[in-house]
Amino acid sequence: MNLKVPDTPVVVVDLDKLETNIREMAEFAREAGVSLRPHIKSHKTVEIARKQMAAGAVGVTVAKLGEAEVMVEAGITDILIAYQVVGEAKLRRLMDLMGRATITVAVDTLPGARMLAEAARGRGRHVPVVVEVNSGLDRCGVLPGEETLRLVRQLLELPELIFKGLMTHAGQAYGASSPRQVAEIGRHEGEVMVATAGLLRKSGIPVETVSVGSTPTVKFSGRIKGVTEIRPGNYVFYDAIQHGLGVAPLERCALSVLATVISRPAPGRAVIDAGSKTFALDKGAHGTAVVQGFGVVKGLPGWQLTRLSEEHGILEDAAKMEREPEVGEVLDIIPNHACPVVNLTDRVLVVRSGKAVDEWRVAARGRVR
Amino acid sequence: MNLKVPDTPVVVVDLDKLETNIREMAEFAREAGVSLRPHIKSHKTVEIARKQMAAGAVGVTVAKLGEAEVMVEAGITDILIAYQVVGEAKLRRLMDLMGRATITVAVDTLPGARMLAEAARGRGRHVPVVVEVNSGLDRCGVLPGEETLRLVRQLLELPELIFKGLMTHAGQAYGASSPRQVAEIGRHEGEVMVATAGLLRKSGIPVETVSVGSTPTVKFSGRIKGVTEIRPGNYVFYDAIQHGLGVAPLERCALSVLATVISRPAPGRAVIDAGSKTFALDKGAHGTAVVQGFGVVKGLPGWQLTRLSEEHGILEDAAKMEREPEVGEVLDIIPNHACPVVNLTDRVLVVRSGKAVDEWRVAARGRVR
Repeated sequence: MNLKVPDTPVVVVDLDKLETNIREMAEFAREAGVSLRPHIKSHKTVEIARKQMAAGAVGVTVAKLGEAEVMVEAGITDILIAYQVVGEAKLRRLMDLMGRATITVAVDTLPGARMLAEAARGRGRHVPVVVEVNSGLDRCGVLPGEETLRLVRQLLELPELIFKGLMTHAGQAYGASSPRQVAEIGRHEGEVMVATAGLLRKSGIPVETVSVGSTPTVKFSGRIKGVTEIRPGNYVFYDAIQHGLGVAPLERCALSVLATVISRPAPGRAVIDAGSKTFALDKGAHGTAVVQGFGVVKGLPGWQLTRLSEEHGILEDAAKMEREPEVGEVLDIIPNHACPVVNLTDRVLVVRSGKAVDEWRVAARGRVR
Repeated sequence: MNLKVPDTPVVVVDLDKLETNIREMAEFAREAGVSLRPHIKSHKTVEIARKQMAAGAVGVTVAKLGEAEVMVEAGITDILIAYQVVGEAKLRRLMDLMGRATITVAVDTLPGARMLAEAARGRGRHVPVVVEVNSGLDRCGVLPGEETLRLVRQLLELPELIFKGLMTHAGQAYGASSPRQVAEIGRHEGEVMVATAGLLRKSGIPVETVSVGSTPTVKFSGRIKGVTEIRPGNYVFYDAIQHGLGVAPLERCALSVLATVISRPAPGRAVIDAGSKTFALDKGAHGTAVVQGFGVVKGLPGWQLTRLSEEHGILEDAAKMEREPEVGEVLDIIPNHACPVVNLTDRVLVVRSGKAVDEWRVAARGRVR
């Protein structure tokens, strides 16, 4: 990278690659005939959300209410909170936000739905909801089929909730060991949702939305007839885990970390000024075996980022076959997982053709509430 | 915890426990006859640094220049940057900061030392330095003994550097499998440093500072005759890893995360609204086997925080013997590693006897540069 040596560590976004990734996913959604509602938890950045909307997204997905607040503030008015909104303080904030935008919320338990309905009643509101279905991740979500039907019937008795449809996130794809397995998980994600929607409709319940998620799986689940919406997030950047899963080549990875070599304490060992407080410790949230170390060092393929302390990254060249980087040298590293990396920085440096052209604030960084 | 239900997830600091931990370590340093220079990377908070100074610390330790800037802004004027300051932008900032406080810097390579000396020469400054010695962590640091002597002799030829002494951090203690092993690593940390200081003195080089670090080891290395300074950081809070290493009982852990149960999707499984963007993914930076899951759930010992997604924590009760928490219930969880948890939040809630009494800004959060 030919940047005029910036202070490091710094998170860099390549604008050409970012725009290619955004455009390509929007084209896929159009071809597959599904709505694109990208998950902004990956970038937490207003500028990127606006690019996604401009490329044809129908709205955005968020995990946390705090992220929704930032997006509404930025002028985005159709938001899915793909998350259970629970707790007095949050329900109050949700009702406030509903006055300013269309906010759909995920539910997966009757107690949670009742609290939501009660909060809405108190404020004279009606809340659009989707039921979260467990398509194999075993995190949140009711089981597909009869169990989903049972919960939906209970929801229909709560007049403050407007049942819109079903959503799922097949995050278990991150634990896949091959692209073939990713594809299988993706097809299953779509099929199980379409089947459950069919069961509801047979019971006389209209289902408007059948929404599936995750960057690795949407190219498969998004093609299943009956799926109406996809919610990929990470695709704006991609990263070493997506590469390992066969989802994107390294050349498409739009986000990287520039770090400076601060020590060369022994042959085959170099230390950089970025550790887990920059890279996070992600090796795949659900147990992936598709990455080695904590990132891919561009231009020095023999060197692996084998260990991270909080502020140190330890690079090792086990074979000692490659050029040794020098103290002061700036390295460009694709992280394993771009999403937590963005959440650890206040701003990202935006480059085009190796030149810094902008700096974006990570406006929803740290919005875990 | 009897807090009036706060919005979650929220990082909570128990003031009584914090003050006990700060006082106890200050007393240890006095008894052992060593200076206490606590590492503020654990809390990144001005209020806590001031309590440490009031309890008798001689100054503070930081990892990054950005942390040093926050501490100088807060009025602390004696700072060790236990880190190699490398790169043009940083050297410029360091020289600026030296006009406002006594800043000592770690060096461990001749190229790094030369860059530092050159920057100082350009500004007419003299920089106090300590040489970082590798006492077994194999991260930064020159080998003890002859290799350290060789580097120190080279530094003495750079008139802009003022050689103050030696520092090390035996972070490999976090990979220990028993309290006995922690003690051995600690004693070795002190002994190897004192021996190397002796070698330098025999060669006619005065050594003022022999500084050792890490919360698990200082109670052992700090007692070795000849050690002059200790730099523990995590002790202000302690956490599940420190507990697992036998360093402190759980009752001394001053930092915890309050999180709300948002789903109860299956018997023996509950999901909370705090994931890796609150807890981080730390299971011990150097390979510890002393924790199970990602935290200790107070009051529900049968439940383990087995998995973290970015915004979800999955609790499981494998034995299904214990009470099932309800949707909406707030749980109090001691994280594995307090330091990255603090770095993920803008503010911590301060409680005394279960009542919120203050809120502190994590002023040096994200200061990785």
